[in-house]
Order: sequence, then structure tokens, then C-alpha cells
Amino acid sequence: MIEYSEASAEVRAVYDDIMATRKTDTVNNFWKALAMQPELLRRTWEGIKQVMAPGALDPLTKEMIYLAVSATNQCGYCMASHSAGARAKGMTEEMFGELMAVIGMANQTNALASGFRVPVDEQFRQ
Amino acid sequence: MIEYSEASAEVRAVYDDIMATRKTDTVNNFWKALAMQPELLRRTWEGIKQVMAPGALDPLTKEMIYLAVSATNQCGYCMASHSAGARAKGMTEEMFGELMAVIGMANQTNALASGFRVPVDEQFRQ
Amino acid sequence: MIEYSEASAEVRAVYDDIMATRKTDTVNNFWKALAMQPELLRRTWEGIKQVMAPGALDPLTKEMIYLAVSATNQCGYCMASHSAGARAKGMTEEMFGELMAVIGMANQTNALASGFRVPVDEQFRQ
Amino acid sequence: MIEYSEASAEVRAVYDDIMATRKTDTVNNFWKALAMQPELLRRTWEGIKQVMAPGALDPLTKEMIYLAVSATNQCGYCMASHSAGARAKGMTEEMFGELMAVIGMANQTNALASGFRVPVDEQFRQ
Amino acid sequence: MIEYSEASAEVRAVYDDIMATRKTDTVNNFWKALAMQPELLRRTWEGIKQVMAPGALDPLTKEMIYLAVSATNQCGYCMASHSAGARAKGMTEEMFGELMAVIGMANQTNALASGFRVPVDEQFRQ
Amino acid sequence: MIEYSEASAEVRAVYDDIMATRKTDTVNNFWKALAMQPELLRRTWEGIKQVMAPGALDPLTKEMIYLAVSATNQCGYCMASHSAGARAKGMTEEMFGELMAVIGMANQTNALASGFRVPVDEQFRQ
Repeated sequence: MIEYSEASAEVRAVYDDIMATRKTDTVNNFWKALAMQPELLRRTWEGIKQVMAPGALDPLTKEMIYLAVSATNQCGYCMASHSAGARAKGMTEEMFGELMAVIGMANQTNALASGFRVPVDEQFRQ
Repeated sequence: MIEYSEASAEVRAVYDDIMATRKTDTVNNFWKALAMQPELLRRTWEGIKQVMAPGALDPLTKEMIYLAVSATNQCGYCMASHSAGARAKGMTEEMFGELMAVIGMANQTNALASGFRVPVDEQFRQ
Repeated sequence: MIEYSEASAEVRAVYDDIMATRKTDTVNNFWKALAMQPELLRRTWEGIKQVMAPGALDPLTKEMIYLAVSATNQCGYCMASHSAGARAKGMTEEMFGELMAVIGMANQTNALASGFRVPVDEQFRQ
Repeated sequence: MIEYSEASAEVRAVYDDIMATRKTDTVNNFWKALAMQPELLRRTWEGIKQVMAPGALDPLTKEMIYLAVSATNQCGYCMASHSAGARAKGMTEEMFGELMAVIGMANQTNALASGFRVPVDEQFRQ
Repeated sequence: MIEYSEASAEVRAVYDDIMATRKTDTVNNFWKALAMQPELLRRTWEGIKQVMAPGALDPLTKEMIYLAVSATNQCGYCMASHSAGARAKGMTEEMFGELMAVIGMANQTNALASGFRVPVDEQFRQ
Repeated sequence: MIEYSEASAEVRAVYDDIMATRKTDTVNNFWKALAMQPELLRRTWEGIKQVMAPGALDPLTKEMIYLAVSATNQCGYCMASHSAGARAKGMTEEMFGELMAVIGMANQTNALASGFRVPVDEQFRQ
């Protein structure tokens, strides 16, 4: 992992933008690991910055969608960092509880739809 | 799959509740497949009904979370049925586009966090 | 996919062993696809034959474990072929229903354990 | 995580039922984490209790199916807790070894069926 | 899906670049589906174009890595399109066979490492 | 986990072959865990040895394919052991960076192809 003090100018520019965009004075480990590959760091950060910005969906909803993917993929790091992010954006304990309930139910019925090999209904075809 | 006309009273009661709750006159294939196991049908429907009801999160947000799990799990049936559900609850094309962008980005960074074996930051520990 | 009539002697030997072991006169598509790579075909069949044979676990239990993995992985082909296999070995509708209920519940709680980042209890550590 | 001593009456009722059903005097961390959401705790426990009870499949077979899903999903917590559960219900080292061999083989052939895009055989169609 | 003839100038510019880069006169369905979201289309294509270009790894190796991820995720569309891509870049039947053998083995041992909860060796720690 | 000093002759024979093949004097934890099941140990090692040997694909390419599967499956142990293996076979930091970029992109587009339910193009059908 590459710390700010030992980073190249190219990497520092990304770190600076992360801290400015997120209004914090630290860069979390995910970015420090990616910094071994400056181009991957830059492209991933620009993608995240663009995708997570307010749009037709608000930033909190986006963080909860991120959590749904991360819990499904069993990504421990991602749950840790994005649940902090979601709480910072206003996710209450009650919202987190309902989010987890939906995630759990979706994983259950995904497996059931697969296990029963349910054919797609005519009205759901594109 | 068990059609309404051939269903037992127990299964019909669930079908009736599904149609009344969703304000439709059809039951989709997922439930007809589960109806082979009346107890599994009943319990799954009651769970879904409770979990997807309005609460701290609105029903459309819940449908989008469902889609995030389903796209990640590659569940074709679930994408088909829940994208119809989300559109019926007001998801616009623009919202769907942003939803997919977040899902794609989350799957990417989940794999990167795993591949780089990023240690959890001190501030994210419970 | 390679049919018996066009197969090499090496591939035919595997096909013959599959049919003799399973007491059928057909080879299913999975093996016909693998036959493009005779060595992969041979090694995979020998592994399956050994692993699925009666042992401390009976063959039906093994087929149900196979189904649990396949439903979780959303493998349509595997659900189709191994649910036929499990039924041929005596899986009743009731057993299939309970199997699916356990698979669904396990996928649900797996996602919840991940989402809540539950630390392993002292008594469960190795 | 919510300990018994700090739990509400609603949560204590679930904890009491868990301990009575499992004939132990401790509640494991999974339930203590879910207790932040009493309704999710209650519904998940009732589902597990019903699904894992003896039926057409015996409780040990059900635990092994749970392990098959959990190993496939890479759920560390679930492997830890359910392998303890399976051993408590009589799983021997030999049974565990065969279980793991089937899980490994199924994950292998699931990927092969996907990679070769094997079409479902006529006799396996529903 | 949006065909070239009905596409906006923004979408056509991406389609043109896809066809020029790949030296073909067709755009495959993946891009036509993404075109509903012009920004997602543009960003995804630019990412793919950059990532799959020759570098420290050659394009064929990159296509095979893509196939390894796609087979593991059970993504049927991705296997179809990227196995065509890999063959166009020189993947022989023998190479495909070895690729599939490694993918199968990796999925097997991933599940075993998870199932046995193997602790990371001291020499493998970062 | 079974150490060499306490292993049976059958297990020692496998350990000896692992160390001779890999030109090291240690056996990593994965094998020590499998050694509880000597037959599973032997069969898994023989499969790995055969599959990872030089062939139409070189050993380094095979290790990177292994990493692609392991990152996708979120297998921490497998990333740790196989990234050591890949580096020992010559993977540079630059190659690792490009490998990770492809893995990340593939996981992203796999989810997008699933989420958009993209139909397979005529030219990609088998």
C-alpha cells in the first residue's frame, strides 16, 4: 500500500481529489492498494466518483445498492467501507435493518428460482 | 407448476393473497413452482410480503436492492420479474441506468478488494 | 459436442464406462462437450465416479449436496441433470421441497452473516 | 451485538427459544447481530427453526446441505457455525471428507458446464 | 436495444469506435443494450478498450482471464461473446481445454479452502 | 491440520511429491487441511499437478487464470497462495495490475449483461 508521503505526483493528484470530494483528510486502504497501479487507481476513482454522484438516484440509495452487491459477494472490506459510507450519508439503523432483510430475501429467492428452474413468464419477456 | 384451477385450498389462499396484495389477476410462475411445496410457498410469500412493504425504505428502493442482488447472482428469472416490478413502482429508464452503473461498479470493486486483499481500515472496524 | 459414433477410442472408453456405471444407454451433453478435451473428460469422469460412489454418505445425499451447490451457483444445466439424478435415486417431492427450503435459507443467512460482518464465536474457532 | 442482559423482552423471547430448541445456554453471535433488528431476528429464527426441523430429510443431512451452500458462497462465519452444528448432530470426519469432496466436484463441474455452455438434454427438460 | 440507424450521435460515435477498434462492421447486443444509457455505454466501452489493449499482458491472455471470470460467474452471454473473441485472437481448442481445466480446478479448490477454513500461511501474508 | 511428522505414509508420499514438484521444503496449509481426508488430498493434488503443468498454456498464464477465479469467488486463502505462486513464476507488478484490471472489468460487465438480460447474438451461438 502506498502512503501519501511516498506517492508519485500522479497518485497524489488522485488522493487529493478523493479527499476533496469526500471532505475528509484520509484516504482509505482500498485506494492505497490500487495505487500500485496508478492507471487502475485513476480510472477506478473516476468511475466511482461519477457513478456515485447525485443523479436520478440519491447518493444514499446508491450506497445501499453497493451494500446489496457487497453482501451478496461476501466482500468483507466492501461491507466495512460502504456501510460506513451509507451511515455518513444518513442511513439509520432501521434503514439498515430493512436493507439487510431485502438482501437476505433476494438471495433466498434467487436460489429458489434457480433450484426450481422457473421459466420466465410471458409478460416479463422483453 | 400448479395452476389456480388445480390448486388446493391452502395454495389458493396464498394465490388469492398475492393477487390482492399486488392488485393483479395473475400469479407469476415463481409462485406456481413453489406451490409444489405448500409450506415453502406460504412461508416465502409471507416473508416477501412483509419485507417488501413500505417502511423506513420505500417499495421502489427495495425493488432496486432486489435487482442489485439478482444481477450479481446472475438470476435471469429474478431480473425479469423484479425489473417489471420496479418499473411498475416508478423506476424510470434513467434510474435503471444509474442502478446498473452502481451494480457494475460494485461488482468491479468487490473483485478488486478481494484480489488486492485490502486490509480493513481501523476506522471501519466495528 | 462429440457423439459416440464419431468419438475416438479413448473417448469411447469413457462413454462406455459412464453408461455401464449409470446403467443407461445414453451419454448426456455434459460429457459430449468435455469430449473435445479427452484428458479433461477422463479426469472429470473418474473424479465424479469416485466422489459420487457410496461411502460414508449415500448416493442420494450426495446428489442433494450437488443440487445445493448448483442452485447456489445458478447453474441451470447442473440443476437439470442432477435433479433427474436425485429423483432416479429416490428423492421424493417432499424431500426436494425440504432441500430447496434449506438451500434458500442458507443463501439468506449467508448474505446476512456477510452483511452484518458477524465475528466468529470463540467456541467455533478451530 | 446485543447481549441477553441488555436485550428487550421481544429479543429475550427469541434468545430463550433458541437456547431451549438447541439445548444450550448460549446464543451465538449471528443472532446477537440480528437482534439490532428484532423483527428480522424473529422472522429469521422462526424460518431456521422450521426449515431445519426433522422432516423428509433428517437434521444432519440438512446441516450438510447448509455447509454445501456456505462453502460455495465463501461464508466463513457460516462454515464455522454450521460445521460445529453438523458435528454435534453426528457428522464424522469421514462424512465431512466426502461432503467436501462432493462440494469441490460440484463447484468444478458447475464452472465447466457454464464454460462449455452445455445445452440441456431433451430428457432433462421439464 | 438500440440499432445504429436509430441511435443518437453520441451513441453512434461509440458504435463507430467499437467497429473501428475491432475491425468489424457489426456491434454486438451487449453494447446495443447499454446504449439505453449513453453515459454508461461510453464509460464501459472506454474502460474495456483501455483494459483489453496490449500491455504487459497480451490480448489473448486477457480474453482468457475474461473467460475465467465469466465461467465462474455463470454469465452465459459473456462466455458466448468472449470465447468468440478469444478464438478470433488465436485460442486453439487445446488452449481452451487447458483454460477450462484450470477454471474447473480453481473453482474446486476455492470451495475446499472455504469449506476447510484454511488459515493463511505465514509466508503468504502481506 | 496434519504436520509431516504426524502424517501417515500415504499422506507423506503426497507431501513429498508436492515438495519435490514445487522445489520447496514446506507444504502449505491447504494440503495440511486436506490431509484429514487422505484420498481427497491425493486426488486433489494429482489434479492440480496435472492441470498446472506446462502445456498449450504456460504455468504463469495458468496461475493468473487461477487468480481470476479466486478474486471473483472472494477466496482470501487462494489469492494469498496463488499470487505468491504467480510472482514466483515471473508475474511482475505491471502484469498483476493489468490482471486485476481485466478481472475488475469482467466482473463489471458480467453483472451488466445479467442486469440488462442481453440476448446472445446470432453469430455467438454454437
